[in-house]
Amino acid sequence: MSWKDKLRQVEPYVAGEQPKLENMIKLNTNENPYGPSEHVKTVLNSIDTDHIRLYPNSDADELRHALAVYHGLDDDQVFLGNGSDEVLALSFLTFFNGDDPVLFPNISYSFYPVYCDLFKMSYRQVLLNEDFTININDFHQSNSGIIFPNPNAPTGLLLSLDAIEQILKNNQDSMVIVDEAYIDFGGQTCVSLIRKFENLIVIQTFSKSRSFAGARLGVALGNKEAIAHLYDVKNSFNSYPIDYITQQIALASVLDSQDMKEKCQRIIRTRERVKVQLKDLGFIVPDSYANFVFVSHPQIDGQQLFLALRKAGIIVRHWQQPLIDQYLRITIGTDEQMDRLIAFISQYLKEQGAVTK
Amino acid sequence: MSWKDKLRQVEPYVAGEQPKLENMIKLNTNENPYGPSEHVKTVLNSIDTDHIRLYPNSDADELRHALAVYHGLDDDQVFLGNGSDEVLALSFLTFFNGDDPVLFPNISYSFYPVYCDLFKMSYRQVLLNEDFTININDFHQSNSGIIFPNPNAPTGLLLSLDAIEQILKNNQDSMVIVDEAYIDFGGQTCVSLIRKFENLIVIQTFSKSRSFAGARLGVALGNKEAIAHLYDVKNSFNSYPIDYITQQIALASVLDSQDMKEKCQRIIRTRERVKVQLKDLGFIVPDSYANFVFVSHPQIDGQQLFLALRKAGIIVRHWQQPLIDQYLRITIGTDEQMDRLIAFISQYLKEQGAVTK
Repeated sequence: MSWKDKLRQVEPYVAGEQPKLENMIKLNTNENPYGPSEHVKTVLNSIDTDHIRLYPNSDADELRHALAVYHGLDDDQVFLGNGSDEVLALSFLTFFNGDDPVLFPNISYSFYPVYCDLFKMSYRQVLLNEDFTININDFHQSNSGIIFPNPNAPTGLLLSLDAIEQILKNNQDSMVIVDEAYIDFGGQTCVSLIRKFENLIVIQTFSKSRSFAGARLGVALGNKEAIAHLYDVKNSFNSYPIDYITQQIALASVLDSQDMKEKCQRIIRTRERVKVQLKDLGFIVPDSYANFVFVSHPQIDGQQLFLALRKAGIIVRHWQQPLIDQYLRITIGTDEQMDRLIAFISQYLKEQGAVTK
Repeated sequence: MSWKDKLRQVEPYVAGEQPKLENMIKLNTNENPYGPSEHVKTVLNSIDTDHIRLYPNSDADELRHALAVYHGLDDDQVFLGNGSDEVLALSFLTFFNGDDPVLFPNISYSFYPVYCDLFKMSYRQVLLNEDFTININDFHQSNSGIIFPNPNAPTGLLLSLDAIEQILKNNQDSMVIVDEAYIDFGGQTCVSLIRKFENLIVIQTFSKSRSFAGARLGVALGNKEAIAHLYDVKNSFNSYPIDYITQQIALASVLDSQDMKEKCQRIIRTRERVKVQLKDLGFIVPDSYANFVFVSHPQIDGQQLFLALRKAGIIVRHWQQPLIDQYLRITIGTDEQMDRLIAFISQYLKEQGAVTK
């Protein structure tokens, strides 16, 4: 017997790498190419450090209120955590405690099975169709809970509100969590369904559309009773997950949401023209509604293109996994960055003798 | 059947209240009365907000290295989390997975049983002696892990390194976690024992001695293999618990540790004279090595004194719990704050007809 026999055995999630290369174009972790609102800067640079000696407001009430107003909800329908990963982890812990498996798509955010392993929950992966679309009837089976991203990651495909409503109707005995990390890039949020379905939790993040990956803030929205339970679990884990400074600057971001929307529009415009350019180069380009595209080329090996891009200082995401190993997930950066990407790929395809339009 | 049947049932931890009163003296949550180093201010107010759009360094490597140097350890012996509460929660999850109960003192940090409930671990509370001292032989029984604060909270009493070494020797099959949240206020850290015992984890916090309660940073120190396991569990929960800004300002704090030490010395001086004054007023004053004192008066009801202080705008901590309901935990504030406290209590005792020296 040893202390090592009492360790929890886990297969940890591997996040996208954060390489430091000269002149690198970083298109691998879906960060926003544009910084946060100028108001964020003003607030940050005028913070009185003496505040740091005091504990922050445990539930970030002021920020919570601003978000409730933004979403047209009551304050007690809003939960905040240290990035949407923490919000997801606490949501699994709070809502998915049945005996049946948790359901999520087989091609999806790779953290979901990791949470299940960590908390010793069983899960079943629902198979996507060959074109990566979700067959909503597959979610009509016994379960302890359902979770899927919308738009899905890494495919970028969007599910309609009607489809989500059907999943909610079919599963009123379970919590259905819709992970809207990328919803601000052109999708329609299902927050409006919260009034109709008490088994719905919507999770969003400040990391992508609000350029806050470095500041760590995630959000869960739902009915009052479910959110209260989430707070009970959070308060059994960590009383103060969101520091004082993050609360202040996130509030500035919410109060200047127009800035976020304009930057998202810029990213959407860039994404749409990149889709056309990649299709013209012969790529298969599922119709992404996120700040990335997920693409493959019939004549070029995914891993090989990934490595060629990397050698050229362009970092994208590639998984050596069945079903998606021919695909690359490419974050939408600035127009200049995408021009460099497209120029490199065009040249590379020519060198490889691939047929383009 | 309903989604409510799949909820995790918990009794959440209740943190010290954060009242907002005019002219209040806040001595209830052991915050540092002095702000962080001036270097922290300089760093904070010059941060480029454009950095926030990028994910932070997942393991806070630069900060981790600075702390390793500070403690005379290797980088891979240092773990960082979102406040020591998160570090504690992840440590329970990582190390306490046996079938036997987890052991901790019956009068101790009230979060420990909350973590056990949350993660469905059994626990047994080891009874302190009547003077609140720990009988180390009581930790010599089958267990899945041992945890205690040193100095203990809320008593403030310190266990010697010899006593800790004995507990470690008696429990080489379990992880022993020493929670040193208050160690910088005059106690001797047991970090030096890490070299000798691979079943030791030491947890510290930036909240108290480094005036970082509002910025959220906790630390675990231990052998390389144990720390790697803790990172695996953390990476199964949340990849990026420590935001970019906190990493930057915490680094500034570590690099100016002299400032922290001087402020701790000031607090210790204040504490020692307050102990004498309270004893002179007839209080029982266990010999606290923390930035608080835990005191009771033989002739005055604890709850009554708590409420009288509160009415006077002086907020301290009181638990309506068996064994400690006659005690108040009073944070050591500035000299001026403690003067006001002592003046009020002297007057109050006179009015109540209590005998003082």
